[in-house]
This record gives sequence, C-alpha cells and structure tokens, in this order.
Amino acid sequence: MTLWVRFKTVDGHIGFGGLDRDQILEHAGDMFAANAATGRLLPLAAVTLLCPCSPSKIIALWNNFHALAEKLGKPAPKYPLFLLKPASCAVGPGEAIRRPAAYAGKIGFEGELGVVIGKACKDVSPQEASAHIFGYTCVNDVTASAVLNEDPNFTQWCRAKGHDTFGCIGPAIASNLDWSMLSVITRVDGVERQNYPLRDMIFSPAELVSHLSHDMSLLGGDVIACGTSIGVGSIKDGSNVEIAIDGIGVLANRLRTGDS
Amino acid sequence: MTLWVRFKTVDGHIGFGGLDRDQILEHAGDMFAANAATGRLLPLAAVTLLCPCSPSKIIALWNNFHALAEKLGKPAPKYPLFLLKPASCAVGPGEAIRRPAAYAGKIGFEGELGVVIGKACKDVSPQEASAHIFGYTCVNDVTASAVLNEDPNFTQWCRAKGHDTFGCIGPAIASNLDWSMLSVITRVDGVERQNYPLRDMIFSPAELVSHLSHDMSLLGGDVIACGTSIGVGSIKDGSNVEIAIDGIGVLANRLRTGDS
Repeated sequence: MTLWVRFKTVDGHIGFGGLDRDQILEHAGDMFAANAATGRLLPLAAVTLLCPCSPSKIIALWNNFHALAEKLGKPAPKYPLFLLKPASCAVGPGEAIRRPAAYAGKIGFEGELGVVIGKACKDVSPQEASAHIFGYTCVNDVTASAVLNEDPNFTQWCRAKGHDTFGCIGPAIASNLDWSMLSVITRVDGVERQNYPLRDMIFSPAELVSHLSHDMSLLGGDVIACGTSIGVGSIKDGSNVEIAIDGIGVLANRLRTGDS
Repeated sequence: MTLWVRFKTVDGHIGFGGLDRDQILEHAGDMFAANAATGRLLPLAAVTLLCPCSPSKIIALWNNFHALAEKLGKPAPKYPLFLLKPASCAVGPGEAIRRPAAYAGKIGFEGELGVVIGKACKDVSPQEASAHIFGYTCVNDVTASAVLNEDPNFTQWCRAKGHDTFGCIGPAIASNLDWSMLSVITRVDGVERQNYPLRDMIFSPAELVSHLSHDMSLLGGDVIACGTSIGVGSIKDGSNVEIAIDGIGVLANRLRTGDS
C-alpha cells in the first residue's frame, strides 16, 4: 500500500509523492501513469497538503448504502444513481469550506469513501474495473441542503452540491487498500456523527466503476464519491468536520463564512 | 463580431483563429485571454473544425423558455434550474453522436444557444456578467431519454445527458453577437423540427451568468447551454441533426451506432 499525496512547499513548488509516516518521498511524472522517485525527502510538517488529485469530474452516488436506504424507506436501486459535482468544487485537506455568499441556509456534511480512477476506462466489466482503480480517499460531499428541494419541479442536486469548496478530498490516496472491513467515521468538532461499515455498500467500487464507465469515460484522477450512510447532519459556521477512514487518514475541513 | 474556431490540420497541428468566409486567420495564445494573429491563413476546406472550446463543465438549463414551460404546464422558475454535463461529453461540429453500447432506447435532440465564458467569474451582478461572456455558440444537448425516469426515486439528469458525445458544441463562437432577435432552428435529416425565438428565454445569458456565478466559479471556456423550447424529439440511428443560429453557423452531428 502506498499513501499518495500532493503538496505545496513554502517556496511554491507543487509536487506529489508517497507518504511514509512523517516524510514524503517525492516522485516526478504523472501520478496515474509513468512516474519515479526523485530521491528528495520532505518532512510532512514543512509542506501544505493539497487535494491529492485534480478530478475532471466528481461522480457522487445517491442511495448506495442499505442502512440509509432502509431509514429513508427507499428500495435499493437497480443501477447506481448519481449526480455530478464540478471540478471547480474540489478542495484538499485543511482548506476551508466556504459558505456561499448568497446562502444563509443549512449546510450538510456527508462522510464518504472516494474511489480515484487511475487508467482511463470506458465500458469495462466489473472484473476489468479493479485495474482502473488507482486508490481510495476520504470525501466530504458538502451540500447546501435548503437548495435541494427549493423548487418543487426540479431537485437541484448539482446546484446544492456544486458550490466551490463543497467537494473536500484527501488527505491521501491509498493504493491497494482492502476497503471491505473498513468504516467511515465522521466527527464534527470532535463529536462522532457517522460510523458506518463500507461492507454495507449496495454497489461496490468495482461495480460502480464498471457501471459508470458505461455512462461516460472515466479519466485518471476522476473521483467517485460512493455515497453516504446514516448520521448525516448539518454544520454550524466555524465547525470542523473530520472524515476518517483507517489506512487513508483524516480529512479535516472547517466551515467558514466570508473572509474569516 | 468575430467567429472563433478551433481546428486540426492534416498534419495534426491544433490551432484556433477567426473565421472570415472560407479562410481562418490563425491566432496563437489563449483564446480567452492574450492572443495575437500569427499571420497564417488556412483555407477552411483544408482543416477539420474541432469543438471550439474545452469546457471544464457544461451547465445545462432546464425549463428556460416560456413556450415550453407553458406546454409542460410548469411555472417559470424563480431561479435557473440546471444540471451538469461532464467535460468528457463534449464533441465538435461533424463528430458522431455515439449511441451508448448498453442502451437501446430513444435518443433525444435539443437545439440550444450556448454561452461561452471568457474571463473567469464568481458572484458577479447581471451588469458585470456581460463582460465575462466571450461569445455564443450552438449546442445540441443530447439525451438518453429512457434513462431519465427509469428510477422513480431519482431523476437521472446527469446520467441521461452525460454520455460521451452527448454535448455537441460549435461550429464557432461568435463574439459580440446580439442574440435578442435570433432564433434557434433544429433540422433532423433536413426537416425543420424546432424554430424558436431566443427572446422567449426566461433567464437571459447575462442573468444566467450572474446567477450561476453565485453557485460556482465559471471558468474560461465553460459552456452554459441555455435550455431548449418546443419541438424536441428523438432521432434514429444514422440521422443527421443540425442546429442553426444566424451569425454563428450550423452545427451538424450524425447519430451513429457501434463503429459505423
């Protein structure tokens, strides 16, 4: 297993590499294709971690956990149900979640497993799909909840979930991770709000990659947010949200208003 | 008014420039920022036109024309209602619309005006918005119609409209175009199917850019598909769809199956 991170140094250099405890072994090239170690070691404490990839799109699943489907009284879907979050909403670990200037309503958190695509794919089988998964990360799929059902004729998924900073991703991408025994834990200001097992997923990562690759080309660095389970709620301005998955790390982002 | 096009030459060079009748005056630099004429003139007949921009996202409006709203019995929305089409669905003039391998249902066409963003913007007023519009193009917002309401619990806008090749854009971007007296005409295999005036729009291009810039950062090359009006329908495999707007040109794309 490698923990891949992207970082920025104090002198503005942007790089990536493998995280080994408190050091980053820098690599050069393309994280999702050919790359090699540069030999440079950087102390983790000396850099700022960035969003570990630059997704061309974020595909966010709805209703992909049995426990939440049961709570909502919805049947398990026959095919993955999803919306798109734009590339412009992605932020990395430690970056602020910004309340939209014109929005005073509730802002919801959703702790999720993120699948990061490696090699591009189209129309692949579930068996082939695994080879196109580069690794796994934590996602906070943030939502302007009051927008969602504001118009009775059209559920505004893309608008409610597409705001800048509403796609928190990181802190690292874990390759060769066995997700099947892991849980997603969400803490708000230190208080646990979600703790659900990934084995409760309706469509597994490989099934998602296969199905979604029949809907659109998946490209290196694209992120599939696997959907959330029970325990979602809203956060107050100033609150810090942590999404923790063993083997990946803790993704922390604080909700801020205006320029605070 | 300039008609901006992107093109590929027979030797694989990709460039852009201003179209003057049957010649392209090549420019170098960034279409949406600093650029200058190279002095090279290329005959239009000697190049292949490409999608005139590379949108990071395509924002597609729903219910943005009074005539269609009335036909559907829906009130005019109070705020623009939209979904996102991924960058991976964009194709240019003359490129094939590809039927998805696993989909045998109806495929719908929607002729639309496309707004192409120039300078990036966020939270701009309608007055400021015009300065961020680079120009206008034709869009065919293609839909796998049977997917849309396949699941009674979730309308699958992004899936139905996100397939590769389902975002046809072009043939050119017309800067400084007065759209207010123009019409969108859609022809399928030469038969007129849509002919509606743009002045019937509920939210104008400047209002759309202002509103949407409050929802997410709009970046240079991003496309807002302004929504369609009455006359939408489906196309048979092999059919050629033309979207024509005076001052922009004719966007033609043929629906193909498999490798045909």
